Amino acid sequence: MNNFELYNPVNYIFGKGQTEKLATLVPKGAKVLLAYGGGSIFKNGVHNAVTSTLNGYDITEFGGIEPNPRFETLMKAVQIIREQKIDFILAVGGGSVIDGVKFISAAVNFEGDAADILKKRILFTDLSKVIPFGTVLTLPATGSEMNSGAVVTIEATQEKLTLGGSALFPKFSIVDPTVITSLPKRQLQNGVVDAFTHVMEQYLTFPHDALLQDRFAESILKTLIEVGPNVVENPSDYKLASNFVWSATMALNGLIQKGVPSDWATHMIGHELTALYEIDHARTLAIIGPNLYKVMFETKKDKLAQYGERVWNITGNSIEEKAEKAIVKTVEFFHTMGMKTKISENAENIEKTADFIVNRFEERGWKAMGEKQNITLEKVREIVEMSY
Amino acid sequence: MNNFELYNPVNYIFGKGQTEKLATLVPKGAKVLLAYGGGSIFKNGVHNAVTSTLNGYDITEFGGIEPNPRFETLMKAVQIIREQKIDFILAVGGGSVIDGVKFISAAVNFEGDAADILKKRILFTDLSKVIPFGTVLTLPATGSEMNSGAVVTIEATQEKLTLGGSALFPKFSIVDPTVITSLPKRQLQNGVVDAFTHVMEQYLTFPHDALLQDRFAESILKTLIEVGPNVVENPSDYKLASNFVWSATMALNGLIQKGVPSDWATHMIGHELTALYEIDHARTLAIIGPNLYKVMFETKKDKLAQYGERVWNITGNSIEEKAEKAIVKTVEFFHTMGMKTKISENAENIEKTADFIVNRFEERGWKAMGEKQNITLEKVREIVEMSY
Repeated sequence: MNNFELYNPVNYIFGKGQTEKLATLVPKGAKVLLAYGGGSIFKNGVHNAVTSTLNGYDITEFGGIEPNPRFETLMKAVQIIREQKIDFILAVGGGSVIDGVKFISAAVNFEGDAADILKKRILFTDLSKVIPFGTVLTLPATGSEMNSGAVVTIEATQEKLTLGGSALFPKFSIVDPTVITSLPKRQLQNGVVDAFTHVMEQYLTFPHDALLQDRFAESILKTLIEVGPNVVENPSDYKLASNFVWSATMALNGLIQKGVPSDWATHMIGHELTALYEIDHARTLAIIGPNLYKVMFETKKDKLAQYGERVWNITGNSIEEKAEKAIVKTVEFFHTMGMKTKISENAENIEKTADFIVNRFEERGWKAMGEKQNITLEKVREIVEMSY
Repeated sequence: MNNFELYNPVNYIFGKGQTEKLATLVPKGAKVLLAYGGGSIFKNGVHNAVTSTLNGYDITEFGGIEPNPRFETLMKAVQIIREQKIDFILAVGGGSVIDGVKFISAAVNFEGDAADILKKRILFTDLSKVIPFGTVLTLPATGSEMNSGAVVTIEATQEKLTLGGSALFPKFSIVDPTVITSLPKRQLQNGVVDAFTHVMEQYLTFPHDALLQDRFAESILKTLIEVGPNVVENPSDYKLASNFVWSATMALNGLIQKGVPSDWATHMIGHELTALYEIDHARTLAIIGPNLYKVMFETKKDKLAQYGERVWNITGNSIEEKAEKAIVKTVEFFHTMGMKTKISENAENIEKTADFIVNRFEERGWKAMGEKQNITLEKVREIVEMSY
């Protein structure tokens, strides 16, 4: 097992009706920026629940944070906070809103060009230099409510980049699984596949000595497989909803990555498909993941076989046979979850996709990725072309 | 799934050689109380590693915190901290030392009779009223390094009582699995069984909707079964040591208890066996646990069957058959771990044990316990008598 540090100070408040606790969590007397996305919180009652609970607070609203939040949009919120001397941010939304708020929190007091936060991957570890924030989750998928990382897109250059650091954990996150009742089926499908792939990025590498983390990862995968296909049909079933939402948090709150190697190349390639064609994030993962496992078969076959045996109860006469069956099962699961696993089923004029992505990686100086740093740009090309 | 709050701000630092990081973790300029137990840290090199790393700090040492730490002993440390205006405590030891330090941390600024902290179960949630502390773990078992609870014995009245609250999390815990190399086999056996039973207390109740927590609990149990018998023979095998130590933390750091019912009656009865006969804590759990499952069979048989199937790969024609086999497997595992599972194998003159324990519970006003509050004092008597 690799050495690790586990630090996650988020006060994570889970369950029905927990939004009521908001007034005990937002600091008394704080000037609050209430940040949200496209306005679904007005339709599902969450905006009303939040503002009534925070009756008496000085609240400025900032809506319109888009899916794959844009640097350009977020900087408008940064300006408002600076002008109005706001000292607490409440993110009400899904991963995009929460990721956006992490960037806003970091950018307000940042000296210099705020785009450098993303371009130079600056780490935020000093609580006194960020604006504290809490979250009310309305769309489970990314785990952002219980981690300190974020992904932000610079529209001007079509770059999807990351930021993070221990100062960027939410102070609290309110997670009420009943909010998924009003979500469109497509977003629920995305949420399940996104969470599933988050686990795979941290699990599907090679056999190692971290026995407990492997079992935790398999626990999340099995739970998502058990509840995923049903929760998208019956999101008001609390048993299904609560296990889905909790699994999505646990998939990316840092726990299962401690002490183990991780891959993340599926995300790195997938981010480019979103930047290029605006394909939903989760759908890019469903396209790329299985093809990456095929191209990197020699590296990953041992872990694929373990995954097949333990998660899918696959039997077979050889490692290779079990590993191949495990990939087939994964693709079938993504299809069950409504994913179309070819780029051509999700976008048009895709002939130059591989060229574009490989060039983009080259520009950034990326030579290889993955848990063994052996997913070279040639392999990336092969993965993308296999995904057409 | 029940509503829950998950908050665990411990900076948990795991792995080989992590003690080196101590000087970056203890606040600069702090006056430190270095608290430890019977002196094993002088033999295994940990005292030397800690004090060399903290070279330059103003350190007062306080040794002699005993297994099942005594209120009377701990109050001597409280006195020293008050007199010398010490502002940070470093607990170097196992669960007893860390539990003891939690009490010390809470008692220093407590107004009134410090025994009331235990007798009145006062909850500590205000960080400004406790002395901050960190830990260096030397004996894995209790999870105390990553939770905010503690058990302290009042010697004068032979009572083993609890304290806790969100202000009593360690600021950090350094957990280097190589420290177990020098532990006696008996303590390693105890550690495995203690961690195993911690999971069982939170898992072995009745079937419920918290699918992921069940799988996490089963993951820890399977890992302890896989590594337990071998790690006591080969504690210098890092694969075994690291998985054991990490499992022991995860067994009682709060995660698996979120959203689920829990029992804890095995601990409540077991504590009395330790108070009466000084039987090692883990050994009391190995005695009581299986007999409690037998006496409460109707309540627990469904979950026992699930546990048998998933953890022990037991098959059977009925719930009852699988549940019974699961209890047998558990006792066999405890025997493999060197436990003697009868009170009479661990103590003498035990005829009045059940009377004593039932009287003690009556004096405290306890009428029933367990996840369904149906372990009445009559059931307690039956469990204890079955354990003779």
